[in-house]
Amino acid sequence: MKSLLIVAHGSRRQASNDEVRQLAECISKQTEEFDFVHSGFLELADPSIPQGLEDCIAKGAKEVVVMPYFLAAGRHVVEDIPAEVDPIIEKYPQIQITITPHLGHLQIMPQAIMHLAGETKF
Amino acid sequence: MKSLLIVAHGSRRQASNDEVRQLAECISKQTEEFDFVHSGFLELADPSIPQGLEDCIAKGAKEVVVMPYFLAAGRHVVEDIPAEVDPIIEKYPQIQITITPHLGHLQIMPQAIMHLAGETKF
Repeated sequence: MKSLLIVAHGSRRQASNDEVRQLAECISKQTEEFDFVHSGFLELADPSIPQGLEDCIAKGAKEVVVMPYFLAAGRHVVEDIPAEVDPIIEKYPQIQITITPHLGHLQIMPQAIMHLAGETKF
Repeated sequence: MKSLLIVAHGSRRQASNDEVRQLAECISKQTEEFDFVHSGFLELADPSIPQGLEDCIAKGAKEVVVMPYFLAAGRHVVEDIPAEVDPIIEKYPQIQITITPHLGHLQIMPQAIMHLAGETKF
């Protein structure tokens, strides 16, 4: 049983947090690899990252892939997310928990920006 | 003369700001639509958004497209970026300045996440 936890910053603006939750739901419908797709927030929204991981494990996950939904490898990606994840890794040594590169790491970003700026069609 | 201004949050971590600057440079090499591609930061890094716009105008831009390099439409996208851009629009009524939707608005995001999570190839 494999889970995907999409980790976002979290916002005071509820619609912004709901965007992330809807994204998780959308992926949940499309994925063939993950049995459960969930979201977690670093700040300002629920569930927290540790609680999101606990939710996945409570659903029976033996493997959880944590995906930092961040564009730049700032302090949140480099320090804060691992600091939230590490205690859960220690607490559940039998569960395989991994963190992927952050979203901005993807090579498609220049094309995505040009698309938004009206130049390129996907 | 048309400019693209990529607007990011800005980070205390210099490497993160450099990622955004490198992205602007990368787009600059690929674009056929924009004569000048620049970056601007909401906080913690230079140039600020107003200064980034001024830089574009000083280079001769008659049109500037502002692209919020943000994943979720939180307060920064909905309020803070327009609040930085509006005074420049008022200052230069002869320059056409527009703000595109934020990056997270793109329909490719679910595929991008599944790609990072190891499921989908682009």
